[in-house]
Amino acid sequence: MRIDLNSDMGESYGRWTLGDDHALLDVVSSANVACGFHAGDPAGILKTLANAAENGVCVGAHVAYHDLAGFGRRFVDEQPADLKADVMYQLAALEGLAASVDTHVSYVKPHGALYNRIVHDERQAQAVVDAITAIDPSLGLLTLPGSVVGEIAAAAGLRVFREAFADRAYMPDGTLVPRTQPGAVISDVDAVAARVSRMASAGEVVAIDGSVIPVAADSVCVHGDSPSAVAMARAIRARLDADGFDVRAFAK
Amino acid sequence: MRIDLNSDMGESYGRWTLGDDHALLDVVSSANVACGFHAGDPAGILKTLANAAENGVCVGAHVAYHDLAGFGRRFVDEQPADLKADVMYQLAALEGLAASVDTHVSYVKPHGALYNRIVHDERQAQAVVDAITAIDPSLGLLTLPGSVVGEIAAAAGLRVFREAFADRAYMPDGTLVPRTQPGAVISDVDAVAARVSRMASAGEVVAIDGSVIPVAADSVCVHGDSPSAVAMARAIRARLDADGFDVRAFAK
Amino acid sequence: MRIDLNSDMGESYGRWTLGDDHALLDVVSSANVACGFHAGDPAGILKTLANAAENGVCVGAHVAYHDLAGFGRRFVDEQPADLKADVMYQLAALEGLAASVDTHVSYVKPHGALYNRIVHDERQAQAVVDAITAIDPSLGLLTLPGSVVGEIAAAAGLRVFREAFADRAYMPDGTLVPRTQPGAVISDVDAVAARVSRMASAGEVVAIDGSVIPVAADSVCVHGDSPSAVAMARAIRARLDADGFDVRAFAK
Amino acid sequence: MRIDLNSDMGESYGRWTLGDDHALLDVVSSANVACGFHAGDPAGILKTLANAAENGVCVGAHVAYHDLAGFGRRFVDEQPADLKADVMYQLAALEGLAASVDTHVSYVKPHGALYNRIVHDERQAQAVVDAITAIDPSLGLLTLPGSVVGEIAAAAGLRVFREAFADRAYMPDGTLVPRTQPGAVISDVDAVAARVSRMASAGEVVAIDGSVIPVAADSVCVHGDSPSAVAMARAIRARLDADGFDVRAFAK
Repeated sequence: MRIDLNSDMGESYGRWTLGDDHALLDVVSSANVACGFHAGDPAGILKTLANAAENGVCVGAHVAYHDLAGFGRRFVDEQPADLKADVMYQLAALEGLAASVDTHVSYVKPHGALYNRIVHDERQAQAVVDAITAIDPSLGLLTLPGSVVGEIAAAAGLRVFREAFADRAYMPDGTLVPRTQPGAVISDVDAVAARVSRMASAGEVVAIDGSVIPVAADSVCVHGDSPSAVAMARAIRARLDADGFDVRAFAK
Repeated sequence: MRIDLNSDMGESYGRWTLGDDHALLDVVSSANVACGFHAGDPAGILKTLANAAENGVCVGAHVAYHDLAGFGRRFVDEQPADLKADVMYQLAALEGLAASVDTHVSYVKPHGALYNRIVHDERQAQAVVDAITAIDPSLGLLTLPGSVVGEIAAAAGLRVFREAFADRAYMPDGTLVPRTQPGAVISDVDAVAARVSRMASAGEVVAIDGSVIPVAADSVCVHGDSPSAVAMARAIRARLDADGFDVRAFAK
Repeated sequence: MRIDLNSDMGESYGRWTLGDDHALLDVVSSANVACGFHAGDPAGILKTLANAAENGVCVGAHVAYHDLAGFGRRFVDEQPADLKADVMYQLAALEGLAASVDTHVSYVKPHGALYNRIVHDERQAQAVVDAITAIDPSLGLLTLPGSVVGEIAAAAGLRVFREAFADRAYMPDGTLVPRTQPGAVISDVDAVAARVSRMASAGEVVAIDGSVIPVAADSVCVHGDSPSAVAMARAIRARLDADGFDVRAFAK
Repeated sequence: MRIDLNSDMGESYGRWTLGDDHALLDVVSSANVACGFHAGDPAGILKTLANAAENGVCVGAHVAYHDLAGFGRRFVDEQPADLKADVMYQLAALEGLAASVDTHVSYVKPHGALYNRIVHDERQAQAVVDAITAIDPSLGLLTLPGSVVGEIAAAAGLRVFREAFADRAYMPDGTLVPRTQPGAVISDVDAVAARVSRMASAGEVVAIDGSVIPVAADSVCVHGDSPSAVAMARAIRARLDADGFDVRAFAK
């Protein structure tokens, strides 16, 4: 019984602090580290990488659109050649910084609007896959099961890993309930912890209509950008530990 | 008889074009490639790197303060830890992009205000040296003879190379005549070509007061950011070829 | 017989120069001045405004998405409240700078991807109209005839002006031939000058299929971002002068 | 007995939140609102301005160097013409946004490194004064007593107001104890509240050597960027209210 927990990190910028990386590194086995395009200044990224290395937490590149003001949460209609180069630049920067603190980047998890876009946009998905292949084809890709980018990445010979979400409700067809709908986000800590445990042990989750559906997850995403998010992440980890899971990075 | 010519490249940004990289790559043996902090978007940097690789031109990292609006020409009073991380990020990004087009970064030439500052500012000079050491201690450093950063780099075990300037007048003590003074920049193409040839062959130059002074140069900087600059660069190269020099990268 | 010629200006940024504002200000009657979000640093904007004032050229605000790297040519999926505030900020900044050099902003012409998007995107169109209304409801709006933003602006009580394009081919239904199709851009200087004269005098243009269609234009857009663009702009102006037109700002 | 309390506001940026503007607006009589160059996105600035207007709090423009990554806390060696234009742009933007929510900008308080620099740098001080004069000579300037910028502003006919700092220790000569020295910042809430009350009533403060020195203050700066800062600000206000002061904007 083995599962991975991942969380976004390194998302502070200059004077602005976001998330409690310190607390999260005790909880998760994989850290999606910002690369400077939606968040993360070099000094802050470096510190997060060093802390991840000290905690034995696996590092992923949290590549994003170049949009600080929008925190990478707004779709930007970049041409594939530009997007490919932007992602290459971020991957290269993070790999170099990681090596300087005796760790390395193991996988790529696109951030925010880019993550969502390449679930279905073939051109941008291809650009992201091309970027990974050009910089380091040994990197894994963490994405939604069934995504277009997952198919393209697999066809290109990349290792593809499937992600599930701890606190998000699922539709009967296995997609996420849109955030605009009621019940999309689950805030009950114990309920979320139990869901994750069931995902990890049985590969299933109760959908929003009450039906039980399969959820194949190599990694489960938890949040750390608020005190209550940290509390939830800790509860999930405690539950998984209590249930006897080996919480370990998928990319190891 | 061997000399290196270097020039700044990859300094376009998005819609804005600067310099004629294509023309310069026929002239120089070393290209100082922008890393995205004072100029250079990832797609443009990648193109310049690919062109340099095709032309067999050696690549240097033209690291800078993070200041697009000021093109890296304004001193920014960064804390050493921030500056170190900023330079590490730029070096890492450029190294990764270079590898993707089958070339590599051989040296570092800081840009603009950073170049000038670390001639004398010990704290920032140390930060730059620390960054190079942390990312890749095999990188050379190109700087003014006698600079503080050169001393610190040498003490840290880095290879240090000395730069001269084709079109700049020299003081009798070997420093450059400040741009604010008359005669600081020499615009006569033949005169500049002859000066470079003399620097390369005899290691000397006529200073602004008429005296002949020694100028030890591993590389001579030429400009390419205007049509007349390209014409001058070509004239210098033609003169060096005619005089039988082997124009070759210092870092090779 | 009266017509307005408009052109984009103030699109340099720091070290990067774009367009020949000086030449264009002798040709056009209206200047769409960049506001700093896709191009234009404050010192450059100020210079362009002062030059426009000296030449008696009317000033418009060339508001854009916040995207220097993409030069405002990439759609950014901004929330309406953010877009509204971004446009307000740009309008306010340009109005204040204009007043300091004894001119004023008379109209708004959105730039690039924003211009195209709000031809059909109701939410973003509403946001732009709300921004104009909030900052200065006396400002006119320059847009394509039949655009959604034009309808919303008119309903909000704003003055709406219709734009035609000097060098773009038209479909029989009056829309522009997409740039991806052959023949979309007309490069023959005399042909373009003749088209503009016919637009201005008869309100019609020959579409790409040879049919003659109506084109109601309060202003015709000319380009100035290359030597050939300046030559074409001058030819258009010379033709209009020769044909006896009064080339005058629509917003005056 | 009248005194003004001022605090920095609107310093969030996109996803990043900084300071508790809501809490501070109940405490202070003047709000130094970020203008987008060191912090503050347009939507956030607009919200802060609207809240200030609702609370009857006077608005100042917190203009800064263009340096998001450094939060305006790093000296940038801008040419005076560029700095002047940058400050004009910020003032114009803030004035327009303020007018849209039925308030107005009353004064200028430069931020961070710019605030400190123009205490002694004549060229940059002149640039800031020129910017204020060009945009709106009715604006007051809030600065340290005895600063170069204060002298230049007064000579230019601007109203100059003197600022004191609630939680900073003073040298016997009336300058601030540098932050690098022990005891530079006072963290005892009651002690700080008592100091402010004494500044406001008697125009004096106990310096770090125990001597009593005069401190002429039109406004006292309090911080709000942490929970303890808000608590201190509230304690200062409570003390001033209890001591019978009229806490009122200096610029009203």
